[in-house]
Amino acid sequence: LGHARLADFDLKEGYVNLNAGSFGVCPKRVREAYNRHSLAIEANPDLFLRFNYADSLAHVRRQIADLIRSDAGELAFVTNATVGVNTILRSLASTKVADKMGMAYFSTIYGACGNTVEYLVDHTKHIYSQEIPLAYPISHADILQKAEALLQSDKDINVFVFDLISSLPGVKMPWVELIQLCRKHDVYSVVDAAHGIGHVPLDLQAANPDFLVSNCHKWLYGYRSTAILHVPSRNQHLIHALPTGHGYLTDKKKKAGLGKLIGIATSEGANAFIAEFEYPGTVDMAGFLALEESIAYRASLGGEACIREYCQKLVQDGAEKVAQMLGTSVLQTEEGCSMAQVVLPIDWEADQQKMTPNERSIWLIKTAMDDYNCCFSPFVHNRMWYARLSAQIFNELKDFEYVGTVLTKLLKEM
Amino acid sequence: LGHARLADFDLKEGYVNLNAGSFGVCPKRVREAYNRHSLAIEANPDLFLRFNYADSLAHVRRQIADLIRSDAGELAFVTNATVGVNTILRSLASTKVADKMGMAYFSTIYGACGNTVEYLVDHTKHIYSQEIPLAYPISHADILQKAEALLQSDKDINVFVFDLISSLPGVKMPWVELIQLCRKHDVYSVVDAAHGIGHVPLDLQAANPDFLVSNCHKWLYGYRSTAILHVPSRNQHLIHALPTGHGYLTDKKKKAGLGKLIGIATSEGANAFIAEFEYPGTVDMAGFLALEESIAYRASLGGEACIREYCQKLVQDGAEKVAQMLGTSVLQTEEGCSMAQVVLPIDWEADQQKMTPNERSIWLIKTAMDDYNCCFSPFVHNRMWYARLSAQIFNELKDFEYVGTVLTKLLKEM
Repeated sequence: LGHARLADFDLKEGYVNLNAGSFGVCPKRVREAYNRHSLAIEANPDLFLRFNYADSLAHVRRQIADLIRSDAGELAFVTNATVGVNTILRSLASTKVADKMGMAYFSTIYGACGNTVEYLVDHTKHIYSQEIPLAYPISHADILQKAEALLQSDKDINVFVFDLISSLPGVKMPWVELIQLCRKHDVYSVVDAAHGIGHVPLDLQAANPDFLVSNCHKWLYGYRSTAILHVPSRNQHLIHALPTGHGYLTDKKKKAGLGKLIGIATSEGANAFIAEFEYPGTVDMAGFLALEESIAYRASLGGEACIREYCQKLVQDGAEKVAQMLGTSVLQTEEGCSMAQVVLPIDWEADQQKMTPNERSIWLIKTAMDDYNCCFSPFVHNRMWYARLSAQIFNELKDFEYVGTVLTKLLKEM
Repeated sequence: LGHARLADFDLKEGYVNLNAGSFGVCPKRVREAYNRHSLAIEANPDLFLRFNYADSLAHVRRQIADLIRSDAGELAFVTNATVGVNTILRSLASTKVADKMGMAYFSTIYGACGNTVEYLVDHTKHIYSQEIPLAYPISHADILQKAEALLQSDKDINVFVFDLISSLPGVKMPWVELIQLCRKHDVYSVVDAAHGIGHVPLDLQAANPDFLVSNCHKWLYGYRSTAILHVPSRNQHLIHALPTGHGYLTDKKKKAGLGKLIGIATSEGANAFIAEFEYPGTVDMAGFLALEESIAYRASLGGEACIREYCQKLVQDGAEKVAQMLGTSVLQTEEGCSMAQVVLPIDWEADQQKMTPNERSIWLIKTAMDDYNCCFSPFVHNRMWYARLSAQIFNELKDFEYVGTVLTKLLKEM
């Protein structure tokens, strides 16, 4: 692992990517597998889409299920984690699991998912939201205490959306304990594991969330964009595919004793949940099929633990190195992952005289890219500037040293 | 045009595809353009997704807008027509355009779209549906009369979903007159033009629908799956992107005077509608960008009229030929398009002793494909069996003669 692995990816030569956490990276062999599937589909679209794809997809679903100790009957493919979170929250809102529905989330929720909750609040009388402010550094115990305080004081909260690994800052949350807390308070746990699969070990049987989504294109080396939606059997009656498609069985049809009639094959042994999600209308299925190649590539590298340990150690060492170069520190977290945050020596308030934090963030990314051919994720949290650094198997400590030098220069240019 | 054009596509050699209307066909050069864009994205995902894509996408949007006399500020990309119809109907349901909302549709509505209306009916107190039965053959005047009768008698109908070209049967509807009828009765017209763009001439300025969606992968030779959603300025405040993403401006943010803050560039001059739809989270954008190549390919063939006239004439002649071979007739319609229906000499009731119509349909498709390497769409309408035949530029009359022979054999095997 290290720079030699750059040959396996399509990143432009010389580009120092310490931001694979944002959009993921796709190995060449996965793209090639995608192209093979794509050509097979084009050779006879009807054959593939009417007859072959359902079982092919079921095969990949079983492989993913094995990887995260889910069950292929509890796993559907969706295009990305945001679609997954929308599917869950909009379904729960439609099913109206309670007369008054409170949806809780931490202030560090991913923007699009926070917007999804607020969209429902803005448009649905019986839904309201509660945001729990989090200011890092913070211990897991404190996070759990804040969550429990809300669930204890507000008995109308029945849905809690939280990250497995939050995006900004890129930090692993006490997700298993949060699931347990939800169960204790009879609240649905909705785990946004956008950064989950391929990043940290997942055992969904043990963790037992009510709902979980994970991008495969972020850390699993999946084709962009591929994601999974995990819904245990006990909750499948609450969830419907988004968009509503051929697989939805209307009340009218149910009353008339009809099933779905669409001339599209269903995979062998598919339950009602799978049957509803399996054919999301005409979409590009080749990316999902290519996930098999992602898994094979990961095995060829030595497997999950090998990849994970390399990236986690590297980002830890790398972030320390950058902090040392900048004379700052690394955001301390209770558990490591393959992302880390280095404090940037920028005076948050003073800099706003020059531009807004959003403009500054874009300036930092754009200048790093245009002038120095590298990338990281700058952001403000709790009145402090940070750079989020992601480690991938093609990175080495040298990349962090380089970005440290670039940051030093950028800070002078500001 | 004709068999020589097969060289431009990836269809398997010898495969006689008279069903391009179902899943579309993608020219090799469009797939190659897709691959080029895809590689450019992989070379530096952050550069593309944060900075470059919005303006690139806006460029393609302008090209499509020109083609259908829409406006680039009224056009968003979505993955397929079903997603588009879901976006519109779910938005209207959320915005609650009236205290009681009736949604009307014809019985020939596309399955997934009918299911979408019924999903909303099943889960929303203030929404109900009215289905208008259509039995072909039927004149445009009769269709319009049935529609008007409902809108006159039921004043709570405020949304009418109808096809521009229905799927089964594949027939052009009096869509412009239906839009006018909706306007007269103060009802929102939702046009499902899944089979629209690249199939029949579209002048959206003249037709002036309230909402329209069209697949680009069906008839425009777009990469699978690409579609457009047209929302005139007057209705944009009613519509929100599905899934809710970074671009949604929550009531909270509006009250606080905040805009969207996401570190993702917006295209130059984007209005609020475009800004909300422009970045649908991490998805594969390469297909949308490759639409430029679809348009270039169509121009190289002689342009829209040339393609359209070839396909319409061919399907008309071809369907007549098949009907003659089977000793049946072609479903008469008031306006032609590139699909036609031939009556199959199957006794609908008697055949149900052997298998259900759905099973029979699958058997016909599967046997035609496995044993005779060809495809068409069989279906039952108004107690009659039909084969829907689609013509594309790579088809010739010979293909219809071949499918006629195959149908003769299949009918004997039943």
